[in-house]
Amino acid sequence: MGDYHRIVADGSVTTPRGFVAAAVAAGIKQSGRPDLVLVAADRDCAAAGVFTRNRVPAAPVLLDRETLAANPAALRGVLINAGNANACTGAPGLADAREMQRLAAAATGGQPEQFLIMSTGVIGVPLPMERVRAGVAALAPLLAAGGGPAAAEAIMTTDTRPKRAAVEVDLPAGRVTIGGMAKGAGMIHPDMATLLGVLTTDAAIDGDVLESSLREAVAASFNAISIDGDTSTNDSVVLLANGAAGVAIADDESRARFTAALTDLCLHLAQLIVRDGEGATRFVTLVVSGAESAADARRAADTIATSPLVKTAFAGGDPNWGRIMMAAGRSGAALDPTRLALWVEAPGAPPLQLVRGGTPTGYAEAEAAAVFAQPEFTVHLDLGLGDGAVTLWTTDLSHEYVSINADYRT
Amino acid sequence: MGDYHRIVADGSVTTPRGFVAAAVAAGIKQSGRPDLVLVAADRDCAAAGVFTRNRVPAAPVLLDRETLAANPAALRGVLINAGNANACTGAPGLADAREMQRLAAAATGGQPEQFLIMSTGVIGVPLPMERVRAGVAALAPLLAAGGGPAAAEAIMTTDTRPKRAAVEVDLPAGRVTIGGMAKGAGMIHPDMATLLGVLTTDAAIDGDVLESSLREAVAASFNAISIDGDTSTNDSVVLLANGAAGVAIADDESRARFTAALTDLCLHLAQLIVRDGEGATRFVTLVVSGAESAADARRAADTIATSPLVKTAFAGGDPNWGRIMMAAGRSGAALDPTRLALWVEAPGAPPLQLVRGGTPTGYAEAEAAAVFAQPEFTVHLDLGLGDGAVTLWTTDLSHEYVSINADYRT
Repeated sequence: MGDYHRIVADGSVTTPRGFVAAAVAAGIKQSGRPDLVLVAADRDCAAAGVFTRNRVPAAPVLLDRETLAANPAALRGVLINAGNANACTGAPGLADAREMQRLAAAATGGQPEQFLIMSTGVIGVPLPMERVRAGVAALAPLLAAGGGPAAAEAIMTTDTRPKRAAVEVDLPAGRVTIGGMAKGAGMIHPDMATLLGVLTTDAAIDGDVLESSLREAVAASFNAISIDGDTSTNDSVVLLANGAAGVAIADDESRARFTAALTDLCLHLAQLIVRDGEGATRFVTLVVSGAESAADARRAADTIATSPLVKTAFAGGDPNWGRIMMAAGRSGAALDPTRLALWVEAPGAPPLQLVRGGTPTGYAEAEAAAVFAQPEFTVHLDLGLGDGAVTLWTTDLSHEYVSINADYRT
Repeated sequence: MGDYHRIVADGSVTTPRGFVAAAVAAGIKQSGRPDLVLVAADRDCAAAGVFTRNRVPAAPVLLDRETLAANPAALRGVLINAGNANACTGAPGLADAREMQRLAAAATGGQPEQFLIMSTGVIGVPLPMERVRAGVAALAPLLAAGGGPAAAEAIMTTDTRPKRAAVEVDLPAGRVTIGGMAKGAGMIHPDMATLLGVLTTDAAIDGDVLESSLREAVAASFNAISIDGDTSTNDSVVLLANGAAGVAIADDESRARFTAALTDLCLHLAQLIVRDGEGATRFVTLVVSGAESAADARRAADTIATSPLVKTAFAGGDPNWGRIMMAAGRSGAALDPTRLALWVEAPGAPPLQLVRGGTPTGYAEAEAAAVFAQPEFTVHLDLGLGDGAVTLWTTDLSHEYVSINADYRT
């Protein structure tokens, strides 16, 4: 499908036609950096969202689910604050999120139920609503078609780099563009409890199709990365389609090309998140194949990707493959130790097999160490049982991760 | 039940009558420290064992399961090496474990199938059998009733302190003693994939009773601690009963007292392991109550105890309770955010309630920070739904943990 689309690495949520964005420093972040963002469309949008499965969802997640269920075809924008998660804030928190909808509507001339709300930051602290009110008022005159990059900067928390891109897709009826931004560097783990992501497109697309395309794209991207196994109370990915390109996604071919492009864009943003993982010094592609089922492959890969002993070995550049065996063994996936095979692979080099039939191949330790010393490498575990396979992207667990998270609130 | 037993903190596996032990430096550990241990009984013992659930079990685990199944009533001892796990070593590894049985038998005059084997250390490296042979030969003349403390030292790997104790139990028919030692500081997590533990008793006790007592004791002790969520290929706890005290555990009252004492001894050893957790700077008692079921309480507690974000907050002394809510929320346990309550408690101080009905109580931040600054404290989360409850013991995730595990093999 890659023949029909190209990633635009410098793109953003305002790359598709008919979207504007702006960011201001409202004083919600302690740092005083920009922390309030509005992304708005020039007309009503079809919209879809995927939200955290955490059972302590933040107020904006509750509200967005309600908003999308009631009004999936006439959204106008997304108002986002960083610095405060509006989570564990009870009924007052939900009231604050509703007020954010009203503020966004008042600033742009829509209705409250046309706006999605996202919050990220500290849990359990009431939003400073007087700052939010002043901030939203300041946002309105700044909304511009060039506002996407500033928006991607302002939604960052412990992120060190903004994450944004776009993708151009050639459809039988013409070209459409999808833009996106994401934030997230910790609490990153599959099951869509990952991050904030805002996606925009100028394609004309039905809400049902939009939702299934988004779910498919998220499964292969934001739900296939793991930094620390923690999943947040707030994480949400939403997609707004305004139809400004005048190209409808109505036939199967268009839908397939659109979904492939959306998936690539989400994967691009997801990998930017892994590369910016808190304290990350390695970017590891983890392939588990030969599992009895896809679910078993996922189980083994998740356990390996979240094992502190595996991740500290990655940090130390230590080809300690025994820890990978150990993690697979405790994952609950069906396995036969005598069938396990393991390869590691540095970019541009052939795979080096470390384990065959569950025991070491007699590889040269220096060769294995050279792979693990790279900033990027692939680990491939084959269980030798069936066709179940999965690819995840993950990081190491470094001193810097501990520093960031031991000191985050202070 | 505590009225009938007393922990002897300075006890060991040779505190009960009729057990001897010895340790030598066989050259298996790179450090050259003692690494080979034999614990032997003066007569046939009933025996029981609990082993890792990891699906990549090490050779000694496979062999011990076979040995106990074939010969549960006539064991004579346990031969243990540290420095090499004999895991992921295939058929040659199993042959090496069987040779260790023969060596132990030859050195002490028993039969090979009367000995259990334990190994701990690096995975995937063949045992240096010539050193093991010489080591076992050197062990035999050293076996002594005072050998328990040296044995507890020699089984350590990344442990910084030996873990050993005994407990005296008064039964209606007389006094019996249970002794024990354990090792483990990483790969520590519930589900009995925890550590090596050797327990000895001079009680006369039937194999079935021994097994059920051991399972009950382990569930409330070694299976209720978590350091890093990783579970090893080798972990095993075995209990040998030689009957040398001439006191039989035959009635319900004796059995209940014995099990209570055994549980206390195991809990004592398990807590020593947590306190010596790799890089641990906190000893945290985690109570989850009010869950819909015991399984749900366990699910929530396990997720909290293994959350990198919770554990780094512990390391930083940061009362970041939002991360505890987040972890409970992603655990899969049924919960209603509006019913959550959270207390923290320093030793000797009253509980400080941080959360009521899912939102902050308005506690003073300085008071909460003072609790989290302690080396020991209790975290109590109540889900407000039912009667399910569990208590776990866990640690923080510190810089030192990363250092130990990034450098372990090198």
